[in-house]
Amino acid sequence: MTAAHPTAAHLTVAEVRLTPILVADPPLLNTQGVHQPYTPRLIVEVVTADGTTGVGETYGDTKYLELARPFAERLKGRQVSDLNGLFTLADDLAVDRSRISGQVDVGGLRGVQTADKLRLSVVSAFEVACLDALGKALGLPVHALLGGKVRDSVEYSAYLFYKWAAHPDGVPSEPDDWGAALDPAGIVAQARRFTERHGFTSFKLKGGVFPPEQEIAAVRALAAAFPGHPLRLDPNGAWSVATSLVVAKELGDVLEYLEDPALGTPAMAEVAAGTDVPLATNMCVTTFAEIPEAFTRGAVQVVLSDHHYWGGLRNTRQLAAVCATFGVDVSMHSNTHLGISLAAMTHVAATVPGLHHACDSHYPWQSEDVLTERIAFEGGRVTVSDAPGLGVELDRERLDRLHRRWLDDDGTLRDRDDTAAMRVADPDWVTPAVPRW
Amino acid sequence: MTAAHPTAAHLTVAEVRLTPILVADPPLLNTQGVHQPYTPRLIVEVVTADGTTGVGETYGDTKYLELARPFAERLKGRQVSDLNGLFTLADDLAVDRSRISGQVDVGGLRGVQTADKLRLSVVSAFEVACLDALGKALGLPVHALLGGKVRDSVEYSAYLFYKWAAHPDGVPSEPDDWGAALDPAGIVAQARRFTERHGFTSFKLKGGVFPPEQEIAAVRALAAAFPGHPLRLDPNGAWSVATSLVVAKELGDVLEYLEDPALGTPAMAEVAAGTDVPLATNMCVTTFAEIPEAFTRGAVQVVLSDHHYWGGLRNTRQLAAVCATFGVDVSMHSNTHLGISLAAMTHVAATVPGLHHACDSHYPWQSEDVLTERIAFEGGRVTVSDAPGLGVELDRERLDRLHRRWLDDDGTLRDRDDTAAMRVADPDWVTPAVPRW
Repeated sequence: MTAAHPTAAHLTVAEVRLTPILVADPPLLNTQGVHQPYTPRLIVEVVTADGTTGVGETYGDTKYLELARPFAERLKGRQVSDLNGLFTLADDLAVDRSRISGQVDVGGLRGVQTADKLRLSVVSAFEVACLDALGKALGLPVHALLGGKVRDSVEYSAYLFYKWAAHPDGVPSEPDDWGAALDPAGIVAQARRFTERHGFTSFKLKGGVFPPEQEIAAVRALAAAFPGHPLRLDPNGAWSVATSLVVAKELGDVLEYLEDPALGTPAMAEVAAGTDVPLATNMCVTTFAEIPEAFTRGAVQVVLSDHHYWGGLRNTRQLAAVCATFGVDVSMHSNTHLGISLAAMTHVAATVPGLHHACDSHYPWQSEDVLTERIAFEGGRVTVSDAPGLGVELDRERLDRLHRRWLDDDGTLRDRDDTAAMRVADPDWVTPAVPRW
Repeated sequence: MTAAHPTAAHLTVAEVRLTPILVADPPLLNTQGVHQPYTPRLIVEVVTADGTTGVGETYGDTKYLELARPFAERLKGRQVSDLNGLFTLADDLAVDRSRISGQVDVGGLRGVQTADKLRLSVVSAFEVACLDALGKALGLPVHALLGGKVRDSVEYSAYLFYKWAAHPDGVPSEPDDWGAALDPAGIVAQARRFTERHGFTSFKLKGGVFPPEQEIAAVRALAAAFPGHPLRLDPNGAWSVATSLVVAKELGDVLEYLEDPALGTPAMAEVAAGTDVPLATNMCVTTFAEIPEAFTRGAVQVVLSDHHYWGGLRNTRQLAAVCATFGVDVSMHSNTHLGISLAAMTHVAATVPGLHHACDSHYPWQSEDVLTERIAFEGGRVTVSDAPGLGVELDRERLDRLHRRWLDDDGTLRDRDDTAAMRVADPDWVTPAVPRW
């Protein structure tokens, strides 16, 4: 069942390395709280019998590590080309359900947590690592393994956040030079800096932080500063249907789409029925199982894919096919991630026809990476690499440094918890009830 | 946009050969008429700059040849790995709409003809040929290029037909040794021979030929002869909703599914609402565009894919993903085809998870092939090849012989027309109005 070529040593997995790391993250605000000063990620390396190494990246919280370890063991001896088989393997992985908590994953803000989504998030890192190794072994870029690029570069949007100037006093953290952004002027200044540094021409504001009228004012300020540019607002489901409709009406003339204004498919369907502003989601459609209800009810017009929790690049292409079939647009969600994932996102996005919206990426917020060379945005776009595999190279020294940070942590940062991080600044902070406004 | 590797000569298309052929076909009956004594097919060869040849196969009627010729020209210089780009190429191909006729394609009985479906049927042969060449160039079987097999063999069903003992007197044809099958006893005898020769354990009867009560009797006879074996009946949309429901009721206890009892999604939805017998289709869902209405209305429970008109093996996988998302089963349709297509069908079927029904194949009816070695069914299954590419080899002498037959034809057989073939035996025969019963 596993071996495409029983004797293909160059494709046989001989070793798998898992390296949990902690990555510096600025104090970015969302409706749940604030990003921790360091975010856990997991770096996966798949090494073939003749020494080709492929890399992948996913969430690094304990519950992912616990699944990744047995998965890594079972990958040995298989072929890196056996990508369909990864899902069979994953189905066999036991999930500790006591670790699946909450309606919404605090760290990721990506909908309901399920055992299946946990498993797929783990699979994705191995899938990307296998594709990277396979591409290197065959002399083909990952996009060619996905049927070939249909564009030479992929557009990303500037991911704007309300943020503090620094993490709370006394909390170990890396300084950032972005300053605070807590009002319309701060958001516009941040957007200008994004355009100056990276050339972005479309803008997404992470909302749900302040009362809607303040966020409406911020988007209005962006529209005034960047007339005609695509704008998006994403409160992560913090609003009621009524509030969502008010915001949609107020901003209908400047929004490219409104992202997850309300929580869950029924509420999104109600909002969609009351506005012409397209609704995007990475919260109510996060698995294939959630698609039929959402599409049948017309609850969403854009699905923001994320290869991490959809189960990899090939599943992302399948999602795109399902969306195309039902006339739903597709674009890309992002969480805190490094260059490996940005490369993976770029390869798959390059192969999806009809990509009408710039993809999201947190990458500009990450001052640290595990690559020898950071990936550059030019004109808001990332050039699709034609080098074999992902076209990135792991910097082992950088990886080791971030891994040592993880080793040195006493456990408080190994599981991302934006609510807990906020509580450091505001001891009374609790996870806000939804809808918040 | 095209070159994965600008210098990858082993993947660059240097030459494309198109060989239209005429293949002997027994006098198999369907609701439109009877198979011609010879059926047109097109064999596609894609040759890379270093001489690797990949093969593909599709419909060979004039309208397909007219599209394949400019497509072949434009393929030169591209990479065989650039599979997504094939669809961009296809979109540019002009279709002579005067050649798109009728509600139902007479030869294929595969739903409404559209320019898009014509183009995809042409693309599929080039896609398979590119995959074959790519696999050979990389040393990987086609299934590995599709993410790897999840099963080692693929099950096919015995495709039973009402048939005459021979084509009409005076019509040039190849004799077959199957004899006539025009009643329940004949169908059971045919089924027994299928099991003896190939080990099939599931049976499909092409219906719509005789009044439903006769076909019900044939299926009952099969159920008595092969108790507990999966049985299917496919009248190609020849029945009214009322008749469909009568047949479903009569045969509900022995049918695995009923295939296209009535024509079109609204009628199929009505039938589905009135019976628990699952409905399969290769007529009302034949393109991605037809999926939303059919799935939303619950009109079909099994989609019978056909990589020819769905646009290739990768599109077939995408169709399977859409079906899985909506809880619709998938299996495989077949029309008259040779070993190249059977190999392609087997590779893709090997990679699709959750394939719960045996695939259809006409292949046992084809006494001729263009391969050096026929593909064998053992226990009703075809073993998935692990050789590079499709794992088949073109027999140039056989190809030439079937091509000469095409060259020698005066044009009457170059476009398959089952109604015209029936008219040779019955000058009064016209395309039956639907519903026929």
